[in-house]
Amino acid sequence: MSKKAVVLVSGGLDSATCLAIARDMGFETYALSFDYGQRHRIELEAAKKLAKSLGAKEHKIVKLSIEELGGSALTDKNIAVPDYKDSDQIPITYVPARNTVFLSIALGWAEILGVNNIFIGISAVDYSGYPDCRPEFITAFEKLANLATKAGVEGNKFKINTPLLELSKAETILTGIKLGVDYALTISCYQADREGRACGKCDSCYFRKIGFQGANIEDPTIYK
Amino acid sequence: MSKKAVVLVSGGLDSATCLAIARDMGFETYALSFDYGQRHRIELEAAKKLAKSLGAKEHKIVKLSIEELGGSALTDKNIAVPDYKDSDQIPITYVPARNTVFLSIALGWAEILGVNNIFIGISAVDYSGYPDCRPEFITAFEKLANLATKAGVEGNKFKINTPLLELSKAETILTGIKLGVDYALTISCYQADREGRACGKCDSCYFRKIGFQGANIEDPTIYK
Repeated sequence: MSKKAVVLVSGGLDSATCLAIARDMGFETYALSFDYGQRHRIELEAAKKLAKSLGAKEHKIVKLSIEELGGSALTDKNIAVPDYKDSDQIPITYVPARNTVFLSIALGWAEILGVNNIFIGISAVDYSGYPDCRPEFITAFEKLANLATKAGVEGNKFKINTPLLELSKAETILTGIKLGVDYALTISCYQADREGRACGKCDSCYFRKIGFQGANIEDPTIYK
Repeated sequence: MSKKAVVLVSGGLDSATCLAIARDMGFETYALSFDYGQRHRIELEAAKKLAKSLGAKEHKIVKLSIEELGGSALTDKNIAVPDYKDSDQIPITYVPARNTVFLSIALGWAEILGVNNIFIGISAVDYSGYPDCRPEFITAFEKLANLATKAGVEGNKFKINTPLLELSKAETILTGIKLGVDYALTISCYQADREGRACGKCDSCYFRKIGFQGANIEDPTIYK
């Protein structure tokens, strides 16, 4: 197999770093984003800029009308995005089965391209407690991928790469800085406005802020 | 949990039977279809009629622009649908990771609805040899589902029901007839025309034909 990888790119800080890491590892990258009715659709503009800036060979945005299924503050405009609060609960910004859906489509594209590496920028540190950001989820998906596909059945095993899994947000940022990621291009906020300005209050803003503080790097985020 | 189930309904013979079986088992059914750029989009009209005729409580059609990823005769108009041929090869009508993607979205909807039963009308008999129609794929998906979701983590285990798995096409048809499925509403052909008329030549038409012959039931299919 050629040294190519499909990389999930949301437009946020983590996936931008993940894309830079994949490139640094010598992969020709195929960036994949989703237009799934997220209220922060401006992140797709960020994803386009990042894919270009980090040398992705191709960038596809797949439309997916899951917002009509409802159930998450990220896609349902009738549910407010809450401010950050330290809690053991899975928050209302959780989009049911999102990473499963995104990885499945990435798997389909990887199979079409003849690629067996997929990158996803999830972390089990400094995150919101989503169940589909845990290592056991990734292991189970990898197993599924090799049973679900023609390529997997024929022995071209898929690998789901999660280079940020053990990194804190600060470590992620320091890694990205070394690899030339321009974090001013990234948008993390769940309710960024059309100009890409962040609320500074949601979970995602919270983790981003403490990341830049911890890394001792100037935060390029523009707030509302 | 209430006795509700999400049922994948394509508009074809198998999923119609599956929907009837779920109802017969006492489930209130939530039918889910996908508009994924399939060349036989007329099957979505069939899905609507079937959901109504078989008493589904709700029917959602999720749009999914995977056709732009290419790679399958079912979604890429530059690749012809081949005539049926007995072979060990996985055919070009295979849509990479399709059942994984469909089940993932069904999983998300099930979690939103607070439902833990999902039905999919796959069969490991009289089928085209797609890797994602095998029992080991379903087992792996079920495991993934319980790791991927808030509901699964909290102990509301998901079950992927595959009532047709061991049935031949003829047995499926006989089951459906007993349960009141009107097969004249179903469309199986991969290249049905806008009036829903079938080609009579593709894999899907082939298996449908031998099914009706084997069941000794008059075939209601209208051919081009």
